[in-house]
Amino acid sequence: MTQFQSRTVAFIGLGLISGSLARALRASSWNGALTAWGPREASLQRGLELGVIDHYSLELSEVLATADMVVVGAPPAATGEILKSVVNELSRLNRTPVVTDLASIKGHVIDSMACDYANFVPGHPIAGSEHSGVAFADGALFRGREVILTPLPHTAADATEQVKAMWDLTGAYIKQMGVEEHDALLAASSHMPHIVAYALTRALERDASDAMVHGGGALRDMTRIAGSDPLMWTDISVTNQTALLNAIDGFQDEMTSLRDLITSSDAAALRDYFAICRAHRRAHDDILNPLPSRDSEETA
Amino acid sequence: MTQFQSRTVAFIGLGLISGSLARALRASSWNGALTAWGPREASLQRGLELGVIDHYSLELSEVLATADMVVVGAPPAATGEILKSVVNELSRLNRTPVVTDLASIKGHVIDSMACDYANFVPGHPIAGSEHSGVAFADGALFRGREVILTPLPHTAADATEQVKAMWDLTGAYIKQMGVEEHDALLAASSHMPHIVAYALTRALERDASDAMVHGGGALRDMTRIAGSDPLMWTDISVTNQTALLNAIDGFQDEMTSLRDLITSSDAAALRDYFAICRAHRRAHDDILNPLPSRDSEETA
Repeated sequence: MTQFQSRTVAFIGLGLISGSLARALRASSWNGALTAWGPREASLQRGLELGVIDHYSLELSEVLATADMVVVGAPPAATGEILKSVVNELSRLNRTPVVTDLASIKGHVIDSMACDYANFVPGHPIAGSEHSGVAFADGALFRGREVILTPLPHTAADATEQVKAMWDLTGAYIKQMGVEEHDALLAASSHMPHIVAYALTRALERDASDAMVHGGGALRDMTRIAGSDPLMWTDISVTNQTALLNAIDGFQDEMTSLRDLITSSDAAALRDYFAICRAHRRAHDDILNPLPSRDSEETA
Repeated sequence: MTQFQSRTVAFIGLGLISGSLARALRASSWNGALTAWGPREASLQRGLELGVIDHYSLELSEVLATADMVVVGAPPAATGEILKSVVNELSRLNRTPVVTDLASIKGHVIDSMACDYANFVPGHPIAGSEHSGVAFADGALFRGREVILTPLPHTAADATEQVKAMWDLTGAYIKQMGVEEHDALLAASSHMPHIVAYALTRALERDASDAMVHGGGALRDMTRIAGSDPLMWTDISVTNQTALLNAIDGFQDEMTSLRDLITSSDAAALRDYFAICRAHRRAHDDILNPLPSRDSEETA
């Protein structure tokens, strides 16, 4: 087998996240070929022009025939189906490369994949941007960020180690957990906050005073992710429905509590409430602000 | 009268915002003295050591006796009372300098000030940080940001012009509007978003999975302002109660709509909803992101 960092990585679907992984590998000691397949030739061509990949094909089998590592980057609703096609094609080719994905929901992906493949390692890098497309690929996107792997009971330990080793090269740190735990966690830490940002933005859009024109840093941050890809977030909302609704309910309970405290002008209780929030945020500053100027990179 | 930019500016209360104004004036063509009074000598001493001000006194009358321009920087609940003391003291001194304030709520301030003073120009710079205190004063804080002035029927036009001219030197742009319009606008564009950030942070704080440990850029932005000063936000919540409750209700309606769409897995409606939000945010990108690296300055 080819030496680890000389292996060919095939990106099945080339967008912001998979493109950023390609750039991060390229900037590391990885010297294997980076190839891609995707449904839209324009994205692949753009990736080639930008030097994100070395080669692409519109034939899935052609790309899989040479891949040592396969990275499926697609919306969560499509990822399971694509993984199924990849595994079927690999079986036909009689090849067993390591396969991983990037979807932000694992339960739905694994359910719709509906087949076992010992070298499949479900993965999810906790990084992104309100932009989409390979043109925004950024080799520094994963630096200091978390990548969660959720190996399944039938996943080969060696496959997990290889996916870990690949992500190590991007500056990310790797955690392992169960599929359900991952999906509940992501509902709370990412999916519900996105829904909140969308609701906030829509409330302002409906406000006749055009409040956003007068927005400061608070509104900038609270609405940034409402610029995210509508298709991706529709997918996430639908595929992580149960966990997302739970997280929304937890948030709505807090809004109701705060509204009650404001209605009763309970200054002492408001102070305590806000102080607990401040302390909780400050206790996580190091994790949430790993890089001083992420903002400039993400809006570049 | 002293030439405009050689005038003495007295800061009544020295914190993040007033200190940032002092730094911005110092960095501009302003060459008059910058003085301060405040209830805590430690803050004044710190401002002096950092070169934010030239002089301070713990006697309000001493500072007002030489002031050509008075800037009251205090929490909204206290600003009206302080303005009343300032106007009374100026009357005793038989002086009529221009007076302005920085409070983010105007109705409550003007009500509790409970006196007319022709040279008083209510003001509010739309800029801030989750940090507080003069040590975080930043001369670039207002660059590209909006300052809203709400002159009253009895306000002298010349006083408004002078406050405008002062803010012009900071790189801010100036808008004028009525007091009620300002308070409703700020409830929507700032106060309600802060309440949302607090509710979100508290929901995560109560979540046993410690979701914040796994937060990415989305959570970083959606919780940053939950690190804001609990006392200030208690003040704001109580003093802008009516407008804030209206804005919260508008937001809650949107959360309920989105929750319903997720419950019914209405992908087409979710896509449309998210797309409207994305378009609205993108249409305001220039206003909300005036500087590419505000984030690094604010967290410095």
